[in-house]
Amino acid sequence: MARRLLCGAAGAFRLGGVPAPQFGARFFAQTESEPLTMRQQNGGIRRIILNNPKKRNALSLSMLESLRENIQTDADSDDLRVIIISAKGPVFSSGHDLKELTSAQGQDHHTKVFQTCAEVMTLIQNLPVPVIAMVNGVATAAGCQLVASCDIAVATEKSSFATPGVNVGLFCSTPAVAIGRAVPRKVAMEMLFTGTPISAHDALLHGLISKVVPEERLEEETLAIAQRVSQVSRPVVALGKATFYRQMAQGLDAAYATACKVMVDNLALRDGQEGIRAFVEKRKPVWSHKVENSPD
Amino acid sequence: MARRLLCGAAGAFRLGGVPAPQFGARFFAQTESEPLTMRQQNGGIRRIILNNPKKRNALSLSMLESLRENIQTDADSDDLRVIIISAKGPVFSSGHDLKELTSAQGQDHHTKVFQTCAEVMTLIQNLPVPVIAMVNGVATAAGCQLVASCDIAVATEKSSFATPGVNVGLFCSTPAVAIGRAVPRKVAMEMLFTGTPISAHDALLHGLISKVVPEERLEEETLAIAQRVSQVSRPVVALGKATFYRQMAQGLDAAYATACKVMVDNLALRDGQEGIRAFVEKRKPVWSHKVENSPD
Amino acid sequence: MARRLLCGAAGAFRLGGVPAPQFGARFFAQTESEPLTMRQQNGGIRRIILNNPKKRNALSLSMLESLRENIQTDADSDDLRVIIISAKGPVFSSGHDLKELTSAQGQDHHTKVFQTCAEVMTLIQNLPVPVIAMVNGVATAAGCQLVASCDIAVATEKSSFATPGVNVGLFCSTPAVAIGRAVPRKVAMEMLFTGTPISAHDALLHGLISKVVPEERLEEETLAIAQRVSQVSRPVVALGKATFYRQMAQGLDAAYATACKVMVDNLALRDGQEGIRAFVEKRKPVWSHKVENSPD
Repeated sequence: MARRLLCGAAGAFRLGGVPAPQFGARFFAQTESEPLTMRQQNGGIRRIILNNPKKRNALSLSMLESLRENIQTDADSDDLRVIIISAKGPVFSSGHDLKELTSAQGQDHHTKVFQTCAEVMTLIQNLPVPVIAMVNGVATAAGCQLVASCDIAVATEKSSFATPGVNVGLFCSTPAVAIGRAVPRKVAMEMLFTGTPISAHDALLHGLISKVVPEERLEEETLAIAQRVSQVSRPVVALGKATFYRQMAQGLDAAYATACKVMVDNLALRDGQEGIRAFVEKRKPVWSHKVENSPD
Repeated sequence: MARRLLCGAAGAFRLGGVPAPQFGARFFAQTESEPLTMRQQNGGIRRIILNNPKKRNALSLSMLESLRENIQTDADSDDLRVIIISAKGPVFSSGHDLKELTSAQGQDHHTKVFQTCAEVMTLIQNLPVPVIAMVNGVATAAGCQLVASCDIAVATEKSSFATPGVNVGLFCSTPAVAIGRAVPRKVAMEMLFTGTPISAHDALLHGLISKVVPEERLEEETLAIAQRVSQVSRPVVALGKATFYRQMAQGLDAAYATACKVMVDNLALRDGQEGIRAFVEKRKPVWSHKVENSPD
Repeated sequence: MARRLLCGAAGAFRLGGVPAPQFGARFFAQTESEPLTMRQQNGGIRRIILNNPKKRNALSLSMLESLRENIQTDADSDDLRVIIISAKGPVFSSGHDLKELTSAQGQDHHTKVFQTCAEVMTLIQNLPVPVIAMVNGVATAAGCQLVASCDIAVATEKSSFATPGVNVGLFCSTPAVAIGRAVPRKVAMEMLFTGTPISAHDALLHGLISKVVPEERLEEETLAIAQRVSQVSRPVVALGKATFYRQMAQGLDAAYATACKVMVDNLALRDGQEGIRAFVEKRKPVWSHKVENSPD
C-alpha cells in the first residue's frame, strides 16, 4: 500500500521559499478500494490521513489497526522526522464505531477495541518523533482522545471537541485519560458530564490544542511546524521526547536526576557536539541524525 | 428537616420548555429556627443552599456537618442525579469560622474542624453524582476550596475568589490542596502568598470555575447544566466520575488499563447496552438508572 | 560583597505612601570587578540581579554559583521575607553558557553544570520565603527554567519565553522539568520541539508567569507584591510554602492528611494565634516572625 501511495505526489507548493512536501488533490481522491488511513512521506514529514469520511472517520478496530500500522511502519528509520495526522471530510473523527460495541460482539471484542485504541494513543507518546494532529472539523470521544494524545495539535477555527459518550450511555472514560492530562480538571469534567462541545478557541485556551488558524491556512501553518521539527536532529528530539514523558511522571527531585543525566547523554551524541560546535563557530549545524556518540 | 423543606416549592418557572425545578423566594426566607444549610430536591436535581448570610456563610463545624448531611442523605437513591450547592446572600462562603480556631478551643477541636472540612471536600469527589457549585459573590479560603472541590462551577461576573488566610496568620494550606489541583501552580502561589482575590474571568481562564455568566442568568445556566446531567444514566455517570478521579492519580499505562476495563464494564450495564441499541436504532434511549448488567 | 552592595542605595522612591526599597542607577552601573549577580536587601525584600548583560546573563557555572550564594546567604534570618530575581540588560537570561558544554570540558564538568542548575532551581522551591522573578526581556532555556521555578513571576509585555535548545542539538530536558510542571503539556511540547518563543501574554495565559505589566510599571508592580508578602508572618509563609510543594506531590487523601496537620500546627504558632486574636479583636496583627509556638 505504502508504495502506491508514496508515488502519489505530483505538483508542488512552496513554503517559506523551500519546496514543501506535496499532497495533491489527486492523491486524496477516494475510491472504493482505498485503505482506511493513507500514508505519504516526503522530506522527513509523514502524513497519515483518516480516510473514511462517510463513516465520519470512526475509529473502528480496522481503522485503529490501519492507523497503528501507518504510525509504526519504519518509525525507526532516520528518514522519518515528524508525523502529521489529519482527516478527510468535515469530521476529524467521531470516535469508536458504536456498532462494534453491541452485546452481539461480546466482551472480548469490546476489550480488544479499547485496548487497541489505548495502544495507538500510547504508541504516539512512545514514538521517537513528534506527532502533530491537524484538525479541521469535529473531533469527538476517541477522536478527541486522539487529538489530546498527539504532541502538538493545530486546528481550524470551525473545529470543535467533545466527549458526548455519556449521552449514549457510554461514559468517555478512556478519552478522559488523555483529556484529563491535557486540560484543567473542571474543563474535563464539564465536557465528560454534559457532552457539550468546546470551541477551538476554548480548546486552545485550556491546552487541548496548540494553535488555532483560519481554515485556509491550516496546511501551511501545520507544515511550517512540521518542517521546523524535520530540520532538527532526530536522535536529539527522540531523547527529548522520551525524557519529557518519563520525568513528568516523577517527583521533582527524581525528575531533575533523570533530566540532568539525559542532558549529559545528549551532549555526548554526535549531533549534540555538532550543535554546540556549530554554535561556537557561528555556522549552521550539519546533523547526522544517527544515534551514536561523538568520537571526541 | 428535609420533609418540611421538600414541600416548599410553590410556583414554577420554565426552562427550555420543560418545567424546571422551582426554588421560590418563600422557600429561602430565613427565620431564626432555620438550618445552616437547606436542601430541596426536584426532578433528580438536589439543591443545597448555604444559609447563614449574616455570618457570611462561614464553614463553621456545624455548617460543615449540615452540608455533609445534606450531601450524603439518600445519595445512593436512584432519584438523585446531580447536586447544586449555592449560597444565600452576597458572600458564597468566607471559609472557616475563625472564632472556632482560637487557642481557647484547643487543638483537638481545630483538628476536628479541618478533618471535617477535608471529609466534605473528599465526599464531593467520591459521590456517585456530579456536584455543581453555583456562585454569586465572594468565595474565600475554605469557601474557595469548596468551589474548587466541586466537579463543575458556574459563577457570576461579580464573583471573586481568594485565599487570604496568610493575612490573619493562617496560611490556606487545606484550600491549597483543592486549588493547587485546579489551577496552574503560579496562579495558586500568588493567591496563597498575597491573598489577593482573582476575578471570575481569571478564575475561568485558569480552570478554577467552568463558566461565567451574567447575574440574571446564573440560575438558568446552572440549571441547564444540571438538567442535562439529570437526563443521562445515573450508573453510567457514577462509573465515569469514580473512574476519572481514580485514573488521574495513576501513571498513563495504569490509567489506560483501569479505563479500558471500565469501558467494558460500562458496556455491560443495562443502560450501556440500551444506549448503544438506541443509537443504532436511531431512537431516544430509555434509562433504567439501575446498577445492573444487561441481560443480553 | 554584600556589604559593599548594601550601602549602594542613595535616593528613594515611594510606593503606596511607604518608602520603598531603593535600587538606583548608580547601584547597578557595571564595572569590570563587579560580581555576576548582585544582592541588596531592604525592608525584608532581597533583590538579586543577574549582572552579566554582555553575555546575555548566561547561567554559566560561576553565575549559577553566585546566584545560589546570594539566595542562600542568611536565608534563615528573620529579616528576609521575599526575594526578587531580575536581570540587567535586555535579556533576562539566555540559559547555559554553551562554551562550557563542549567535549573539551568533559562529562564531569557537564554533569556539574546541570546538577548545580537543578540545585538552584530546587533551592528556590525549598526556600522558606517566596521568590519572585521580575522579567523584562527574553528568557530562554535554563533562563526560562529559572522563571518557571520561581513562585511568582511578573513580566513586561515585551518579554518572551523559549526553549530553543533543540536548534543547537541540545534538547531543553532540564528546563522541561520546570516548564512541564507550569504549563499545559501541549504548550510545553510545542515550545520544546520547535524552539519558537511565546509572548508574555501567552505565558500568562498558560500559567508560566503570574502577571504582565507595561515596562514602566514593572518595578512598581513587582515591589507591590513583594511588599505585601513582606508584611505577613514569615514562619506562616514558610510553613505554607513548604506544605504546598509537599502536598502537591501526594494523592488527594494523603495531601489532606498532610495539610490538616499543618493547619493545626500553623494555629499553634505564636503568629498563628496572634492573627486569629487580632481578627477577633478587630485590630491589626503584630507579627513576631519567630518560629515558636504560642504560649497559650
